[in-house]
Amino acid sequence: MPVYSAIQLRSLTKNIFVAESATEENAETVANHLVRANLAGHDSHGILRIPGYASSIENGELDPRATGTLEIDDHAVGVFNGNRGFGQVIATNAMRIAIDKARHYGVSAIGVYKCGHIGRMADYCMMAMQQDMIGITTANMHPIMSAFGGAERVFNASPIGAAVPTSRERPFVLDISMGMSVEGKIFLKKARGEKLSQGEIVDKDGKPSIEPDDYLSGGSIQPFGGSLGYKSYGLAFLIDILSGALGGSGCASSADRLEGNGVFMIAIDICKFTALERFKKTIDEVIRKVKQGKKAVGFNEILIPGEPEFLEEEKRLTSGIFIEDSTIGQISEIASRLHVEMPEPFISAPKPR
Amino acid sequence: MPVYSAIQLRSLTKNIFVAESATEENAETVANHLVRANLAGHDSHGILRIPGYASSIENGELDPRATGTLEIDDHAVGVFNGNRGFGQVIATNAMRIAIDKARHYGVSAIGVYKCGHIGRMADYCMMAMQQDMIGITTANMHPIMSAFGGAERVFNASPIGAAVPTSRERPFVLDISMGMSVEGKIFLKKARGEKLSQGEIVDKDGKPSIEPDDYLSGGSIQPFGGSLGYKSYGLAFLIDILSGALGGSGCASSADRLEGNGVFMIAIDICKFTALERFKKTIDEVIRKVKQGKKAVGFNEILIPGEPEFLEEEKRLTSGIFIEDSTIGQISEIASRLHVEMPEPFISAPKPR
Repeated sequence: MPVYSAIQLRSLTKNIFVAESATEENAETVANHLVRANLAGHDSHGILRIPGYASSIENGELDPRATGTLEIDDHAVGVFNGNRGFGQVIATNAMRIAIDKARHYGVSAIGVYKCGHIGRMADYCMMAMQQDMIGITTANMHPIMSAFGGAERVFNASPIGAAVPTSRERPFVLDISMGMSVEGKIFLKKARGEKLSQGEIVDKDGKPSIEPDDYLSGGSIQPFGGSLGYKSYGLAFLIDILSGALGGSGCASSADRLEGNGVFMIAIDICKFTALERFKKTIDEVIRKVKQGKKAVGFNEILIPGEPEFLEEEKRLTSGIFIEDSTIGQISEIASRLHVEMPEPFISAPKPR
Repeated sequence: MPVYSAIQLRSLTKNIFVAESATEENAETVANHLVRANLAGHDSHGILRIPGYASSIENGELDPRATGTLEIDDHAVGVFNGNRGFGQVIATNAMRIAIDKARHYGVSAIGVYKCGHIGRMADYCMMAMQQDMIGITTANMHPIMSAFGGAERVFNASPIGAAVPTSRERPFVLDISMGMSVEGKIFLKKARGEKLSQGEIVDKDGKPSIEPDDYLSGGSIQPFGGSLGYKSYGLAFLIDILSGALGGSGCASSADRLEGNGVFMIAIDICKFTALERFKKTIDEVIRKVKQGKKAVGFNEILIPGEPEFLEEEKRLTSGIFIEDSTIGQISEIASRLHVEMPEPFISAPKPR
């Protein structure tokens, strides 16, 4: 049961990628993002990804020194070529441009292609939020989800993130996908011998199934919402278009789709529309109204988007981050090969005497 | 069973609002929008609204001559004061500005306040689409829906529309809300003595209910998605912020909320990002891939967002639009008072001999 501090894991991650010939700055950006995902409780987007990124660097798919190039720079919009760099680095740089443009034009939109896996959408949206803007980020990737009524993989789960600044309350930070499930959860359930939930997938013949193997053998994740799944399907389709067709990465199921994440980002400068303090107070007011409202039967608390992650982060900053042995095993192997020192876990299972 | 042609209903609607002292242009815009909703099969947003609009004009809530004022005009963004005009007129004028700004800056965002009921989001998005842009429109209004886990009305159903141009296929036109239901459907079920679906609402104490009366006595519509309803709740919250807090109309549950729709619009000029023909062909390709894909058990066809409405419109353009007697009765009364001639239905129930 090894438990590490965020500081330990950040430094480990950074050292590994520097040893894999990333620049200091790129390695630090990736380390920050991965460990932030662990802190937020989204371990599937955390340092678990190190082995995958390392092997992508080693086989030449991922350029750890790339920082991206703004290929189209036209007033409030741009297209950013990620040059096969780390998704976290490319998306961070693209959002910086979006923020600069929004500061000038009030709103901006950036399409990104040739970009590695960017992880959680929320992180980039929060960059805009910290500048008193609303940030919105969408992404697409290889298809895993069917249309509403379909039995073929045509869309990614179509994640969307958004962040909105507040005054006294914790900020509004949305990070969701349009799927009933995501691949990581299905793999995990398979590994643990568990069944899926009803409605999560259909098998390759379009029959509902709760068997993880039926996904692996050509089934598809369903858009969420049951009989109203046409709504999330419609949003998934829109997110696929924005993320893939504008920036040039291609839609999830188009023949010319490029590897990696297609990304679309919008930044909106609030103070161009209204007095910033008034805006923030309105959001505070709604957040309090929502949280203090009556609860539905079976609920003790109403959470604001982003709140579960903030609470988990506060907890893990104190109590540390638990990393399962198999992940630590894989990372140790890479670290040892690269002569990077592994940190000592500050809580671990008692050794046998 | 009176059935009218779209041409008849448009002319009737226009004449009524001109008689209610709207300008010719405003009356025509409202008539086009209402009848387009009837054609699309969304009768709840069609000429059924005439009596409500007429009484709003008569009691001074709605100014039928207003065209709106661009109060903030700052590069790619703007805030548009609807001056309590017809929602359809104000939203049309706001989208025109969004299109002009997007043509110059690549992307634009407009917030709208003091705006009447704008009807379907899709119509304004399609204005951008016809200019080879992506149009996105969101709106808010008085609260009818709870947060995920809540039992109090804090959000509107939070509608969002989007339209994307294609080359040979019918365009992609999304128009959805985040609710399990909308008020109109609940009123209709009550009128017909029908029950609601499971999960559609909770009563004022937060208990699930299928009784329309439980909504009317303080219950609230639920965000769609069942146990994944936190996703549509998060989107509803975001749509409420964009629609209400940027343009100054106020959030659905904020104390200073103004009457009418708060509206937010984005226009994205596709050709600033990529070659327009390439973009359209990609969307065509995905549409065909989706439609031709294998179907899930229980489905014979996969529909593209907007397709049900296009099919209905094609049908009703030929076969006419059925308007229920109660609606025609109310409209006849208004028409007679204003000395506007009622059209002859081209199909109607045989008269008793």
